[in-house]
Amino acid sequence: MLAVAVEEAQAGLAEGGIPIGAALFAADGTLLGRGHNRRVQDDDPSMHAETSAFRAAGRQRDYRSTIMVTTLSPCWYCSGLVRQFGIGTVVIGEARTFHGGHDWLAEHGVAIHLVDDDRCAAMMTDFIAANPALWNEDIGEAE
Amino acid sequence: MLAVAVEEAQAGLAEGGIPIGAALFAADGTLLGRGHNRRVQDDDPSMHAETSAFRAAGRQRDYRSTIMVTTLSPCWYCSGLVRQFGIGTVVIGEARTFHGGHDWLAEHGVAIHLVDDDRCAAMMTDFIAANPALWNEDIGEAE
Repeated sequence: MLAVAVEEAQAGLAEGGIPIGAALFAADGTLLGRGHNRRVQDDDPSMHAETSAFRAAGRQRDYRSTIMVTTLSPCWYCSGLVRQFGIGTVVIGEARTFHGGHDWLAEHGVAIHLVDDDRCAAMMTDFIAANPALWNEDIGEAE
Repeated sequence: MLAVAVEEAQAGLAEGGIPIGAALFAADGTLLGRGHNRRVQDDDPSMHAETSAFRAAGRQRDYRSTIMVTTLSPCWYCSGLVRQFGIGTVVIGEARTFHGGHDWLAEHGVAIHLVDDDRCAAMMTDFIAANPALWNEDIGEAE
């Protein structure tokens, strides 16, 4: 499932965007929605990878058995999304380059699977080194 | 400033949507963006009032001096937005009909102003009584 999120991150990078991808799956592995960060492409600060995938999945009545897969540890915004909608499981590519709210989610009963994937970490390490101001903007770090 | 958020909530209600409105202001009172819940209107579960106002404000480099005004206590999704982007102040119409993450935000240094406005509370009380399933969908409460 992480491969879909990585494809999304790569698509975002190819578009000149921030390379973070995500996908929401049903418990049986059915893809419900996929997306990537769209800050640069759409000038839209509200579309992080996870919110983009959540949006693409459309209105769902019950998220408890769904699985959010993301290339990067979810920030507080995306962690809040997971908690509010009761998404049951989060699969995370890596948390080396950014440590978001996944410990908080685990405390609140969300099943967290941290893959610690080298490709995901390398993609973000390279991106942050080349675009520090853009990255800080995306996570709300003031200059 | 709450009047702008109430106008947004009323506009959402008139469109057949969930009556929650929000607006993001600069410290000097300049309106940066306004919006309302768009779940019904756009079939979009990602557009809560606060995320809609945040989106409408476009890309901002520093949110510390901004003020998010919302008719209702922000859910975890919207509270996560406030925390991640470092929005400094949140003005809340009411928290009687829904108690979201504003205590958590206060613990993390966000200035919280709870107006406890009767109009806001009445609007949501009436809406929830008439549309319980839709309301539960919007806050991720499974049946």
